[in-house]
Amino acid sequence: MAEVLMGVGNAGLKESGNPDILVVFLPYPCVSSFLFTDNYFKAGSVIYSEGLAKERETFRALVINSGNANCGTGEEGIKHAEMMAQKTAELLDIPKEEVLVFSTGIIGRYLPIEKVLKGIEQACSNLETLDLKRASETISTTDRFPKYDFAKAGDIETFGFAKGAGMINPSMATMLAFVFTNAKLDYLTLRRIHEKVAERTFNSITVDGCESTNDAFGIISLGEVEAEPETVEFEITKVSESLAKQIVADGEGATKIIKVQVRSAITEVKARAIAQAIANSLLVKTAVFGRDPNWGRVAAAAGSTEFPIDPFKMEIYIGGYLLYDGKPRNENLEKAKKHMVEDREVEITVELNEGEYEWTYYSSDIGYEYIKLNAEYTT
Amino acid sequence: MAEVLMGVGNAGLKESGNPDILVVFLPYPCVSSFLFTDNYFKAGSVIYSEGLAKERETFRALVINSGNANCGTGEEGIKHAEMMAQKTAELLDIPKEEVLVFSTGIIGRYLPIEKVLKGIEQACSNLETLDLKRASETISTTDRFPKYDFAKAGDIETFGFAKGAGMINPSMATMLAFVFTNAKLDYLTLRRIHEKVAERTFNSITVDGCESTNDAFGIISLGEVEAEPETVEFEITKVSESLAKQIVADGEGATKIIKVQVRSAITEVKARAIAQAIANSLLVKTAVFGRDPNWGRVAAAAGSTEFPIDPFKMEIYIGGYLLYDGKPRNENLEKAKKHMVEDREVEITVELNEGEYEWTYYSSDIGYEYIKLNAEYTT
Repeated sequence: MAEVLMGVGNAGLKESGNPDILVVFLPYPCVSSFLFTDNYFKAGSVIYSEGLAKERETFRALVINSGNANCGTGEEGIKHAEMMAQKTAELLDIPKEEVLVFSTGIIGRYLPIEKVLKGIEQACSNLETLDLKRASETISTTDRFPKYDFAKAGDIETFGFAKGAGMINPSMATMLAFVFTNAKLDYLTLRRIHEKVAERTFNSITVDGCESTNDAFGIISLGEVEAEPETVEFEITKVSESLAKQIVADGEGATKIIKVQVRSAITEVKARAIAQAIANSLLVKTAVFGRDPNWGRVAAAAGSTEFPIDPFKMEIYIGGYLLYDGKPRNENLEKAKKHMVEDREVEITVELNEGEYEWTYYSSDIGYEYIKLNAEYTT
Repeated sequence: MAEVLMGVGNAGLKESGNPDILVVFLPYPCVSSFLFTDNYFKAGSVIYSEGLAKERETFRALVINSGNANCGTGEEGIKHAEMMAQKTAELLDIPKEEVLVFSTGIIGRYLPIEKVLKGIEQACSNLETLDLKRASETISTTDRFPKYDFAKAGDIETFGFAKGAGMINPSMATMLAFVFTNAKLDYLTLRRIHEKVAERTFNSITVDGCESTNDAFGIISLGEVEAEPETVEFEITKVSESLAKQIVADGEGATKIIKVQVRSAITEVKARAIAQAIANSLLVKTAVFGRDPNWGRVAAAAGSTEFPIDPFKMEIYIGGYLLYDGKPRNENLEKAKKHMVEDREVEITVELNEGEYEWTYYSSDIGYEYIKLNAEYTT
């Protein structure tokens, strides 16, 4: 398999003093698809890279800094992103247009660009084989653990790494995820797979309902193995879902993963909207933190979207125990509570009993630690 | 002025043992307008009263119980609401259709209806002049203080009372607010004023972004004084805004009121959506709790709606201090921080610099106390 290389550097952007510059060097221009945050307050690095990714189908290198989001930094921020690409391109001897730039960290501070460029020099002079764990660690900010995974199905190899612990941390932005496949795909097929996978994985997780200014998710095809798109999609979904769940599990101060399933809806968009409302509900999140099988909060969240629900037809389960089916089933509360206390993943299921569509959302609980991390941080 | 009467009873629905039944008796059928929660998971009392309020323009009495939301209780819940109306009507010797029913409290428990009917008997046998403070106390659940206000402009008298401390408390639903005016208004004029006032007051506050199953806001015209609708609207807005701000100030564990102003937008709907996104942002709320002038979180929230913003044209102020205008103005951070520490009301202002519309949203900060109240409660 063609080797993906990486280099690590240190620009002194993190308080911890840990490495903060990652360069990923692909063996040749690879068909790649990138999705960026929908937030209109975009970081300079996002504005720069999104512009490039709209015009090209292949890329050769990624350069990522952590510890500073390069966001809210005006024209200067876009110029800094371009300088990072320029420097990386020079050192790797490739066209500047083949380099994408990503940033994550504090919003509203200019990048100390000279230090960043020195960090890039350091990274490019120490290229080695891609180490998923080390790559994740380098781009991490407030993450408690590195996030990576890989899958193999016959000849098809899929692997990826990510960072993120909350859509936005204490002014520390962002979810970043990069997934690689050795399968050969044309751009349009890759793009179609990418958009579908993104909706079902990274766009179906929530920690605090806040959308970052720097989010990015890329899939890179190394183009070595012929494969059925369906198989590739399945493998990419597997690795992406794993990375997404690792981000949720690292949700700031999270003690539980919450799996919200909305079933038997008349449309997919309705199933999704209701799953999202439940997953984002602060009252549901604090109930899970308190191990309280409070189905009334689930019901109230389910009823709060623009989509009508029929309270008399709806069923609510926690941990598989029926708690509501048009009337209270409070006799099952103790069993549901036991599930919430004992299992790492709390399962909330809502059956709308009106159609055949379903959607799953992953969330995390919110407790004192979240407040501590987000309130006791000073700009 | 024609006298509005009230009676207080106790059905033993509250853990505190405090009175929990309020009957309000109007001197004659009064033109009244009621708005109920948009939540599709509606309480039995809401289903019952909303049906009535759609068909009639005048009402004579309100009966309200606190401590039990009568929500998620199926057909039984609707029947219980009707029994409450029936009992009140019999005792006051008026038609059942002239009585509206409201409930607030725990979701998912059947009303102990016999006790509730006894409480109504008690209330109706002790009628006295409406005491706004005592009325608020009777319908309160987790409220830390009663909420009421009144205003006088020439002959026009306006007064009201409310309860609420979070859109939903620990399974304790609801915002309830009732405003009275002695001005004479036809139903359509009252309704028009009502909808406008509701949008600018009770629908522009948030504690946790969660929508209750039992919310209701009514305006009752006692019809004694001829008055210009504009004047009446102004007075009703004043009293309603006061009640709405009292609810925010009582937000569970709140230490600050947050006033979010979005100005110079191209449309009202855009100004409102952006103000709402900032007011609901958990990261903004925890930043205020931490007295951190973190304008990056305000910017990220402002950029997260469906409405495009121009980050290069936008300005962000906290306490009137410019912190961002296309680039960081971090030299003002200390002054903004001082405002956040010293003032009870934290002012966040976003200028979009694109038009002439504005919207104001009131919110509260979220700290450890919110988590404690909402997690350490057990169903």
